[in-house]
Amino acid sequence: MNIETIRWRDNHIELIDQTKLPEKLVFLKCRDIKSLHDAIKMLKVRGAPAIGIAAALGAYLGIKNFKGGITGFEKQLNGVIKYIGSSRPTAVNLFWALERMKSVFDKNKKYPVEKIKKLLFEETTAIIEEDKITTRRMASYGVSLIKNNDSILTHCNAGALATFDYGTALGVLYKAREDKKRFRVFFDETRPLLQGARLTAWELLRHKIDATLICDNMAAVVMRKGLVNKVFVGADRIAANGDVANKIGTYSVACLARLHKIPFYVVAPVSTFDMSLESGATIPIEFRKPHELIWIKGIQVAPKDIKVYNPAFDVTPNELVSAIVTDAGIFRPPYKKSLLKVKEFKLNQL
Amino acid sequence: MNIETIRWRDNHIELIDQTKLPEKLVFLKCRDIKSLHDAIKMLKVRGAPAIGIAAALGAYLGIKNFKGGITGFEKQLNGVIKYIGSSRPTAVNLFWALERMKSVFDKNKKYPVEKIKKLLFEETTAIIEEDKITTRRMASYGVSLIKNNDSILTHCNAGALATFDYGTALGVLYKAREDKKRFRVFFDETRPLLQGARLTAWELLRHKIDATLICDNMAAVVMRKGLVNKVFVGADRIAANGDVANKIGTYSVACLARLHKIPFYVVAPVSTFDMSLESGATIPIEFRKPHELIWIKGIQVAPKDIKVYNPAFDVTPNELVSAIVTDAGIFRPPYKKSLLKVKEFKLNQL
Repeated sequence: MNIETIRWRDNHIELIDQTKLPEKLVFLKCRDIKSLHDAIKMLKVRGAPAIGIAAALGAYLGIKNFKGGITGFEKQLNGVIKYIGSSRPTAVNLFWALERMKSVFDKNKKYPVEKIKKLLFEETTAIIEEDKITTRRMASYGVSLIKNNDSILTHCNAGALATFDYGTALGVLYKAREDKKRFRVFFDETRPLLQGARLTAWELLRHKIDATLICDNMAAVVMRKGLVNKVFVGADRIAANGDVANKIGTYSVACLARLHKIPFYVVAPVSTFDMSLESGATIPIEFRKPHELIWIKGIQVAPKDIKVYNPAFDVTPNELVSAIVTDAGIFRPPYKKSLLKVKEFKLNQL
Repeated sequence: MNIETIRWRDNHIELIDQTKLPEKLVFLKCRDIKSLHDAIKMLKVRGAPAIGIAAALGAYLGIKNFKGGITGFEKQLNGVIKYIGSSRPTAVNLFWALERMKSVFDKNKKYPVEKIKKLLFEETTAIIEEDKITTRRMASYGVSLIKNNDSILTHCNAGALATFDYGTALGVLYKAREDKKRFRVFFDETRPLLQGARLTAWELLRHKIDATLICDNMAAVVMRKGLVNKVFVGADRIAANGDVANKIGTYSVACLARLHKIPFYVVAPVSTFDMSLESGATIPIEFRKPHELIWIKGIQVAPKDIKVYNPAFDVTPNELVSAIVTDAGIFRPPYKKSLLKVKEFKLNQL
């Protein structure tokens, strides 16, 4: 595929403007943190791991031209981190990446500002390099769950565009394809922002994977007819008990998978786990504006004055999750116990 | 509301072009059966009872200018009926209405052609008058299922626009409102053609009903959060065992209602029952073109070359249906037994 979703180039952040896909592959240059903040908020860059990378690069972008002493530098860094942290609330990778940047500062504040800047830049590179490794590691674990003649349902976009260059749930499919397994894919268009129709379609076509687009409301009948036998999705935040926050509609797919006795797999790096949360009940869920349902790309599809309920994410309770594929291995219920290893893995990373 | 979805005016059929709603209330004139056929096929008029009325009016439109003898007249009527019958396969009201027109001819072929034309026109008026009565009768039965403080989920559009002027599932809500019951409504936008967002929104606003638009994939989370406690939908064809064909996504809602222990009610006139079918397995399901998912009102939202699966309807098995509200009363499981009364009711109507 060789498409990098987001990267540092010369003195700015360059990212694929995902709102322009699939019609146009447009690269957006963010030269200040306001434009980066907007890019995250408007979903020009989206997907938990990619948002993490964007946040880290944004933190660097926000301090790279700082002139002055360490106290002013810390103040500016904190301000930048707070500002970027306000862009979207649900994907924990955003806060995880900002935390990593802050921690680099904390460990190195004895050094001159210019040296700390260099270390912060190196941290962004490390986060990107780790993403490349973790996505491929997840794929290597996850591919064991795919057999020949499987037909897999996925929701939203958990592919290269949601990470640096490979994917979480779609990464598993790419690995299965590399391993020459035979399978096909159905994917939900994923209203309201159509990440499935726009982004997953684009990726799967590029990978020449046998893929069929459906509306979200068709997943049930596709399952009933036996047209899919497994579900793979990504995640935006996973609590310590295995509850999974992911793109709105994921919970619906999980319910339907349970009712049709189809395994429901989540693929997410350890950075997506928020072990500070006992359950998904306290994961902050972003609510977005009504216009996302009333207008589609500038075309009005509902009365302007209709009330709208528009949560961007939902929480799938752990009892509906058959397994969680991570870069630390595959975890199965009971998650409260099995996910202790994730906690350990995270501690070892510090 | 006082909006008539479709009517005979002077020498043509006039109908609300539902593809133009909610932006514009445009009346379309059909002066020949080709334009009426297209109006049904393109969903300018849709909803099982409204399609029935359109078909009956279309049959009359197709023969009203006939000049000649009875043999030629019968041939032309049969041709018109066959042509209109080819417009959409799933809603049985289409065939039911055409059958009624054919039956008027069969019973009266001893009369002069001009007299038969008059009788056929009277039959269209009878079908419309019956629709007004049956929708209100269903509403009177169905309203008993609505309590104060209920919150009702509906899918697609089963309102005035799907009938002559009142509605099936939405008719029950209109009656509840007339009876001053307090309740609110969530409604699915209903991809791909957005009948919920466009049509149900428009109707509920006109009726000043507290209504909230959601994407189809949000129904599950709305149920889980206890934001709805009942589901009411319409139907396009109901088999003798109570299996219900209705707009794609209905089966998904029924599954989710079951999983969340929420009653799932279907509201449909006796004319929507096809007692010749033992189960829903043999209901013909219309598959529509990929472009309905790839384009939304002229805007491309998915790659042009992506494969698409686009059934316009699905079948909800009777075990997920809590009750069926009809103009012959409310029926509950076991349907094989209870629906015998529908068979009887239909026979009495002949």
